[in-house]
Formats: sequence, structure tokens, C-alpha cells
Amino acid sequence: MNKAKGIPTKERLLASGALLFSEKGFGSVSVREICKHAETSMNMIHHYFKSKEGLLEAILEQFSSSVFELPLRILDKPPRSKEDLLARLEMLFETTLDACVENRLLLLVILREQAKLSAVTLYIEKFAWFLSQGKEQGLVRKEMDTDMITGFLLDRIINQVQFAPWIEENYGASVQSQGHSQYKQQWCQANLDLFFNGILPSAQS
Amino acid sequence: MNKAKGIPTKERLLASGALLFSEKGFGSVSVREICKHAETSMNMIHHYFKSKEGLLEAILEQFSSSVFELPLRILDKPPRSKEDLLARLEMLFETTLDACVENRLLLLVILREQAKLSAVTLYIEKFAWFLSQGKEQGLVRKEMDTDMITGFLLDRIINQVQFAPWIEENYGASVQSQGHSQYKQQWCQANLDLFFNGILPSAQS
Repeated sequence: MNKAKGIPTKERLLASGALLFSEKGFGSVSVREICKHAETSMNMIHHYFKSKEGLLEAILEQFSSSVFELPLRILDKPPRSKEDLLARLEMLFETTLDACVENRLLLLVILREQAKLSAVTLYIEKFAWFLSQGKEQGLVRKEMDTDMITGFLLDRIINQVQFAPWIEENYGASVQSQGHSQYKQQWCQANLDLFFNGILPSAQS
Repeated sequence: MNKAKGIPTKERLLASGALLFSEKGFGSVSVREICKHAETSMNMIHHYFKSKEGLLEAILEQFSSSVFELPLRILDKPPRSKEDLLARLEMLFETTLDACVENRLLLLVILREQAKLSAVTLYIEKFAWFLSQGKEQGLVRKEMDTDMITGFLLDRIINQVQFAPWIEENYGASVQSQGHSQYKQQWCQANLDLFFNGILPSAQS
């Protein structure tokens, strides 16, 4: 079907590889299967990627180079005020979620193969830096051990996207539900609220 | 090696299956490989589990039936006071983390195979119930959309355990580090602090 749309062979192989690896795991998919799915001949994987391993590397490369570009730019400068901190963390949350929803297949391949990506390390480091800058300016609580909570955002988002079909089955909607983005909005707002304010009432006991 | 310790064949097959499935994925592991690793003959998988699929089911079953028993008991009754709420959520966090660290291989198999476990659904439902009870009693903020944040605890813990080797490589310690549990303590405290209080200073701006 892809072929009919005139998508180049290399792109078709990347897309078929991502789909099949995410569904069945790298080890369970044969070169023959990928080529059949991409509607091309057996020697094309060798031609473009040398091997099945080479195809996997190229798929992971796609993720690293572009997916977190926008979210990372949001973290480039330290927060200037409370409003700036809130607005940018909200944007960070939403753009990261969108990037993960859009690249769900790549994300699933990464998780399945436990790939260690420099893009993820960079994301966490920049987020830690942003929060520590907020701390210095009194915008984030002094007692907060920011280095230990930098995974919050990615953990929450990755699992929402990874388990979206299961969440949809149980709750009727998920962050990737087409058409009605209400769940996504509500989920983002609730998790930002948790991140900013915690569950306890602010009145001192 | 297992054999020398006198562990029954069935147990050895469960352990070898969990190890190999977690490392290479279900599809990439052969019955022959599992039996060789468990130091038993080829027909033993058929004898105890009918098939490789049956072995996987038995492995997942192990997780469902026992792993979350202790954490779930903590959520049995509604919170009685702020101190009770704080203490029980702290216990919940720690016992869940310990259960996941202890059963890391099973957890990895579940994540790799995207298995849908009733134990996880039950855990999330009971946690949601506990928080909504806290809300009714004014112990949890009225505005908090508790249904949307019930994944917080499991998301954070599962990813800490899943990516422990990678975290250890990057930060020198992880929640499963032997001997020095300082990282684990620090990580638990920081994430409980986030869950209770959020990152913002409590003073109104």
C-alpha cells in the first residue's frame, strides 16, 4: 500500500521495520518479513542498511535526531518569573507528549530493545538544569531534591503513550485518541497540577 | 548451576524462561535454549507447561498472584488523618518499589510483552479509591483530579527499576544497588515530597 503512494524504498523499509519491531520485537522479525511488508526485494535491506541491525540503528537514529528538538528548545534559558516557569513547563509537557504520540512506534521499539539514547539523557540533564535554575531564583522550593524528580515528566508521558491501547480499553480514551482530545488536555492539566502543587491542601496543619 | 542447588525442574524452567525472555524477548528465545539454560531435557517444557506460550503464562501468573499483595493491603482502608495518609503512602511507595526490585525479571518480561495484568489494574483502582477517600475527608486537595494521577507511583517505580542498569551507569547508583541503599532512600523521599507538595514554594505569589 505504501508503494502505491510513491514513498521511496528506504522510507518504506524504515516504516515497516519500526512497525514490525514494535509489534514483535527485533529478534522475532526476519529480514524477509520486513521486505515483504515494505513491498520490496530481499537485497534492499542490505543495500540501504547492510543488515537488520543496521536498519534498527537507523530507526533509533531517527528518534534521536529530531523528536525532542522542540521540547529541548523550551529549556534553553532559565525561568525568569513564576509565570514564565509555569508557562514553559506546560509547553514542555505538551510538546513532549505530542512528540511521543507522533513517534509512538519509534518509542515502542526503543523501549522494547532497551536502547540507550543520548537524546533522553540530554533531555533529563536540561530539565534538571532548568529546575535548579528555578531553585536558585526562589521559583522552586529550596528543599526540593530536583535531581531525583527529573524523570517525572518522561516517565508519565512514555507510559501514557506506551500503554495507550490498554488505557483506552479500560477508560474509554487515551492521549492518542483521535478526534476528542479532551482526555489528553485533562491528563496534562492534572499532572502539571500535581507537579506544581502536590496532593496535599496548602493550609498548614 | 541451578541444578546443583537441588531446585526442582519446574522452578528452574520458570527462572530460565524469565531470564531469557527478559533479555531477548519471547519471540527470540527457543524452547531448546530455555531447556539448555535450565539444564533439563527438551520434553520438560511440554510436560509442565504444554508449550513456550504456556511457560510465559505461568511466569506472568507468578507476578499477578503475589507481587502486589503487601502494597494492596496498605490501601485496604481509607486514610484516617494526615499523618495516617502520609505514613501509608510512604509505605506504599517503599513496598511497591521493593516488590518491583525483587521481581525485576518478571517485570521486564511483562513490559517487553506488553502483558495486561489484572494485578496492575487492581493496584491502580485501589490507589484511586484511596486518594478519593482522602479527598472526601479534606486530606487531599479538592481540586486535584486524582483519577488522572494514579499512574504516578507505578510509572516512576517501574521505570526506575526497568532502567536501573542505565541509571547506575549514568549516576553511579540505582534503586537496586547492592550494599548502599542511600540512593533508594533519597529517591523515595524526593518523589514522595513531589507527590505531597509539588515543586512550587507554598507562599502565595
